[in-house]
Amino acid sequence: MDATLDGDVVHVAGPARERFFDNRGYGSPDGDALDLAPVEAAHLLFRGDIDRVDGMDFRSFLTTTDCTLDFLVYKDLRDRGFYLSPARWRDDTGGADFVVYPRGDGPWDGEVEYQMRVVGERERIDADSLEETLAVVDEESEITYLGVDTPDVTGSSDTDLPTEVGGALLADRVVLWNPPSELYRQAFYGRPLDGRDADGPIQCSLLEGAYLAERGVVRVDANHAGIVDRGREVEGDRFDRRLAVYRALRERDVVPKTGFKFGSDFRTYADVDSADDLGHSEFLVRVVEAGHEFAPRDLALDVRLAHGVRKTMVFALVDGSEVEWLSLSRLTP
Amino acid sequence: MDATLDGDVVHVAGPARERFFDNRGYGSPDGDALDLAPVEAAHLLFRGDIDRVDGMDFRSFLTTTDCTLDFLVYKDLRDRGFYLSPARWRDDTGGADFVVYPRGDGPWDGEVEYQMRVVGERERIDADSLEETLAVVDEESEITYLGVDTPDVTGSSDTDLPTEVGGALLADRVVLWNPPSELYRQAFYGRPLDGRDADGPIQCSLLEGAYLAERGVVRVDANHAGIVDRGREVEGDRFDRRLAVYRALRERDVVPKTGFKFGSDFRTYADVDSADDLGHSEFLVRVVEAGHEFAPRDLALDVRLAHGVRKTMVFALVDGSEVEWLSLSRLTP
Repeated sequence: MDATLDGDVVHVAGPARERFFDNRGYGSPDGDALDLAPVEAAHLLFRGDIDRVDGMDFRSFLTTTDCTLDFLVYKDLRDRGFYLSPARWRDDTGGADFVVYPRGDGPWDGEVEYQMRVVGERERIDADSLEETLAVVDEESEITYLGVDTPDVTGSSDTDLPTEVGGALLADRVVLWNPPSELYRQAFYGRPLDGRDADGPIQCSLLEGAYLAERGVVRVDANHAGIVDRGREVEGDRFDRRLAVYRALRERDVVPKTGFKFGSDFRTYADVDSADDLGHSEFLVRVVEAGHEFAPRDLALDVRLAHGVRKTMVFALVDGSEVEWLSLSRLTP
Repeated sequence: MDATLDGDVVHVAGPARERFFDNRGYGSPDGDALDLAPVEAAHLLFRGDIDRVDGMDFRSFLTTTDCTLDFLVYKDLRDRGFYLSPARWRDDTGGADFVVYPRGDGPWDGEVEYQMRVVGERERIDADSLEETLAVVDEESEITYLGVDTPDVTGSSDTDLPTEVGGALLADRVVLWNPPSELYRQAFYGRPLDGRDADGPIQCSLLEGAYLAERGVVRVDANHAGIVDRGREVEGDRFDRRLAVYRALRERDVVPKTGFKFGSDFRTYADVDSADDLGHSEFLVRVVEAGHEFAPRDLALDVRLAHGVRKTMVFALVDGSEVEWLSLSRLTP
C-alpha cells in the first residue's frame, strides 16, 4: 500500500480509514481515506503496513521528515500496547506532542491517559512549561518517562513558639545559647551543638535564623536584616528564593530541614510531633527561579535519587514571594 | 585552668603537656607547657577542661577566633573516638586541615588514618585540588565525609571490530542499518532500533558514532569530522571532553554507555562478554573540565545516587586529550 506526502501530511487512499484508523487508531479520517502525521506514516512504514510514501522507504522517509525522536517515543508507546494520536489531530493538547489513550482505548473513546511531550536530552525545559508527562529520549535512544504533578504541600507541624530567644550570628549560622527546649524538641528548629544534649545550645541555619527572627522568636544583635544580609553575602539571590520557600513551607505547617545529603535544598516533614521521633521525610525540594530552564539530565538525577530514598521530588518555582510547587516522578507507562 | 592567646596560638602553662598532650593528644608540647591551635582550645573550653582564654569563655572565644567550622568537625571526630591534630603541628599535611590518627593512636604514633579537609557547603572545591578526605559542613552543621580515591579504570571488554560498516547521521544520532551483529551483541555498541530484533539496525549515540568512525569501523557520508561537528553543534566543548573520556574508557577495555538515567555522563561495564548478559555496571562517570569547581551539594548528590545504585562515583577530569580519574564515596569515620 502506497501513500503520498503533501506538505507535512501523508495521505492514504481508502480503505485506509477502516484498516488503520478504525482498527488501530492511526491518523485522522477523511471519508474512507486517511491523513497521517509523518510519525504515524513512519511507524506504518517501519512495520511494513505501508510500502512507500512518495517512493520513499522507511529509511529515507525518516531521514527526509526528520521525525526520529517522535518516532522513537511513538513506537515505544505502541510497543507497550497504547494507541496514541499526534497533537495535530486533537484540540485538547496544550503543549503536548501526543495524546495517549488508556490501554484498550483509542481516539474514538473519550478517555485520555497521558498528555505526552517529547524532549531530547539536550533540550532545555522551561520550568513554567512543565505540565505534560515528559518522554525524554537520551543520546542512546532510551526513553525515560517523567510524570508531572502538583504535590499536596500541607502538614500538621504547628507549634506555639516562644519569643525573644537570644542568639548570635556566627559566620554563616545562628547559635542560640539558651533556647527553650521545645524550639528544637517540638518545632524542630536548629540542631543541638552537642548531640548528647538536646536541651543545650542549638545551631540554626541562616534560613532558620532569619525566619525565627522575622517571627519575633529569635533576637540577635544583627537583627533580622543582618541575618538576611549575611545570607545574601554567602548565597546571593538564591538566599531570598530559599527563604521564600522555607517560609511557605513553615506557613503550611511543613518542617523543612536541609536536603544537603540528598543534594537538594530541603527535605520536609509534614507531621512532626517530636524531633526524637521524626519518621520519614516525604519530599525533597529543589528551589529554582520561576523562569528556570532545566536540563533533562538534572531532572533525571533528582528524580532518580528521590525515588531511591522513597521520597517525592518537588520543585519550588519562586517568583518574588510567590511559590509554585511541582512534583516529578518516574513513570512506567 | 586558664590560658593565653598570642596571635593565633593559645599557650597553657605546665603541666598542660602531661594532661592534654600525653594523655589526650591535644596541641604541640613546649617543655611542660603546651601550645594549642584555637580549635583545640575551643574544644577544651567547650568541655570545661580550660576555663578561660584571656578572660574569654567558650562562646566569646568561638566568636572571636571564628573557628566554628573547624570546631564542628574537630568535635565530631573526637566524639567518634579519634585523636587528631591541626595541620600546623605536622609537616606532612598537604592541603589538609587536620591529620586524623587511627582509633587508639595519637600524635606520638606513626600512623595516619585520614588527611582531612574541612569545607563549608557554600565553598567551591577545585577539581584539581581533590585529594584529602572531605569533611563538608552543611548549613545546619551536619557533617558529610567524602573519601577521595583513584579508581582502577581497566576492563576486559575487548572485541575485534569489523570495518566499513555503513551508517547515516540522523539528527543527533547515528543509525547503522545493517551492522554485523557482533557490534551490538559482543562489543555493546549502539542499541537495536527494534528491541525485539538485536540483529537488525542499531542506533548509536554521536559519541559511539564518532569513536567508531575514527577507528574506521563505521563509515558515514558526513565522515568522522561531520559527526564531531554535529556533536559540537548540540553540546559545544562538552562533546570533545566527553569524546576524550569515551575514547579513554574504550582504550582501557571498559564499555561506556549513557548514564542519563542516573544523571551522569556514563555508566561503565568492565567485563562485557555479551550484551544479553551484561551484569551490573560498576561506575557512574561524570565528565568535567580539569579546572572545574565543584559545589559540595552537587558532589553530595552524585555520591548519594551512586551509593544508592551500588556503583562508584567517578569524575573524569579532562585537560585536552588527557584524562585523570577520581572516585568519591561516602565515608563513616
